[in-house]
Amino acid sequence: MAAQTKVVLDAMGGDHAPQEIVKGGVEALEKSTDLFLYMLGDEEAVKRELGKYTYDESRVEVIHCSETIEMAEPPVRAVQKKKDSSIVKGMTMIRKGEADAFVSAGSTGAVLVGGQLLVGRLKGIERAPLAPLIPTDNEKGCSLLIDCGANVDARPSMLVQFAKMGSIYMESIMGVQNPKVGIVNIGAEEEKGNALVKETFPLLKECPDINFVGSVEARDIPAGAVDVVVCEAFTGNIILKMYEGVALMLLAKVKKGLLSTLRSKIGALMVKPALKKTLKAFSMDQYGGAPMLGLKGLVVKTHGNSESVEIANSILQCVQFKEAKINEKISGQISHSEA
Amino acid sequence: MAAQTKVVLDAMGGDHAPQEIVKGGVEALEKSTDLFLYMLGDEEAVKRELGKYTYDESRVEVIHCSETIEMAEPPVRAVQKKKDSSIVKGMTMIRKGEADAFVSAGSTGAVLVGGQLLVGRLKGIERAPLAPLIPTDNEKGCSLLIDCGANVDARPSMLVQFAKMGSIYMESIMGVQNPKVGIVNIGAEEEKGNALVKETFPLLKECPDINFVGSVEARDIPAGAVDVVVCEAFTGNIILKMYEGVALMLLAKVKKGLLSTLRSKIGALMVKPALKKTLKAFSMDQYGGAPMLGLKGLVVKTHGNSESVEIANSILQCVQFKEAKINEKISGQISHSEA
Repeated sequence: MAAQTKVVLDAMGGDHAPQEIVKGGVEALEKSTDLFLYMLGDEEAVKRELGKYTYDESRVEVIHCSETIEMAEPPVRAVQKKKDSSIVKGMTMIRKGEADAFVSAGSTGAVLVGGQLLVGRLKGIERAPLAPLIPTDNEKGCSLLIDCGANVDARPSMLVQFAKMGSIYMESIMGVQNPKVGIVNIGAEEEKGNALVKETFPLLKECPDINFVGSVEARDIPAGAVDVVVCEAFTGNIILKMYEGVALMLLAKVKKGLLSTLRSKIGALMVKPALKKTLKAFSMDQYGGAPMLGLKGLVVKTHGNSESVEIANSILQCVQFKEAKINEKISGQISHSEA
Repeated sequence: MAAQTKVVLDAMGGDHAPQEIVKGGVEALEKSTDLFLYMLGDEEAVKRELGKYTYDESRVEVIHCSETIEMAEPPVRAVQKKKDSSIVKGMTMIRKGEADAFVSAGSTGAVLVGGQLLVGRLKGIERAPLAPLIPTDNEKGCSLLIDCGANVDARPSMLVQFAKMGSIYMESIMGVQNPKVGIVNIGAEEEKGNALVKETFPLLKECPDINFVGSVEARDIPAGAVDVVVCEAFTGNIILKMYEGVALMLLAKVKKGLLSTLRSKIGALMVKPALKKTLKAFSMDQYGGAPMLGLKGLVVKTHGNSESVEIANSILQCVQFKEAKINEKISGQISHSEA
């Protein structure tokens, strides 16, 4: 099987590890025959979970790790010290070419640091952005937010690379033809913005490889005005976190309203199934985790509270990533434009 | 009447001008006897609207303006050229001390430029931030977002002034005792953030005049984690616009869900009154517009689509602003800390 994708699964990361992580791995094995899984973590705990399921044992290898990086640990230090953790061991496997991709629901900081330090960037890539899909009201139902990782205070040339990588991802993985790329700004006009945006705007405008449509105001992001939302990481983090914060607060208000009177409580019972269905289309789990792009292998960071479905989808995303030859496309385009 | 507050009302600004603006002015006159209103705009149009109401004519003066600044005009140019517009004429009155405050639902850009260029800043103030109240789930039901104006790429010393002015406003106008001040950041730890935040954090920590509680993550802003949300304008604009965008999109989804099946439609009729009531508490109109702080007079920018209630509340906010001696407090604290 030449096209087999080898994915390293961090079995110890996340709130529901190892149970939901292992379960998600088994689900992914069922859905794709082109998949081989390395499950990294406490061998006994992982094998105990695996024992609950029937699966193709020839496509799974458990690798024991004696250490675990905790959520609260300072990431750089943790990655440097804990050589026998699933994150360090797994990412080193990617760098050595022993596997194609790494999936973790563990510490975001450690995954970001590990990605940059251990996996390493593709030639010509200045920084590796973390690019989650966010739910939007466009045809596809989502847009790619790039970057919301740890690369604060990025330079214009980095944002241009983010735009290119984001376009390739949306086109090849999500099937969006000629994806619309916008730069996050505080107004639609080219002369608006902070120093970074003003410098980046003309570079994106001149870039032949992308469909740059100009500035996108934050207000229009949830409506899905663009497919690839380009920004530096500080801004991206705020967009992502505001999304979560406003949605959580507002849905809590709606719930409170529904349960506030006897009449509304009866009505709530009647609207519940339909409301649940509509809002489910709005859930992010179906897409898997956030890819970290521009590395010598794919790193996918899933939510800390991921359950098996998100883990399985993240693993399948890795298979698709390899089959669509995303990294070859990224390398080709970045080298091409540097030549 | 020594304590009378003189407010200039831009009768020509906003989507519903002059009808809703004049109506809001009349409503404010009914609610406060300490108010004198200058209504600036096309004399004939304004007087035609005024003719619809009964009000204390001794407390209103209509001043004719032959020009109007349109929403789409480049603001700096408009403010420089249109000397006989309500924005230029009204703001000049504030600078000359002929009135205390200026309220407009017109072009945000023109109001911001006019505030800085025509009204002028208080001594010692480096920049005048625009500081809207945003709905949050804390006890007060709102927090002050400062700055979301045109001051992109602010320096740390400016953010410290924003924090002080915001605290004074929340304490004196909104009645929040010892308001909690947070700086918008991408993590809770002091070492996180971009260059601006890292430089500003220790300055805020040392500032004796405010109750600085550290970083606030965007996710916690809607929950009302802090009363004064400090950030530079690019970030502030994104927070504000994401708020609007997510809320609009999500409520549309809820509505769609409610109307998607026959059963849910019947239920929707039953939940509607309760839901409306809960979400109304979440509306911003009750607080009036966004104050621009640090100027030699108060400038209040209300939403472009403001109706009379928001206009009236914005005018009453000006009366409160003068009576609470906000500018004296700001001057006192900024001079104090510079001494």
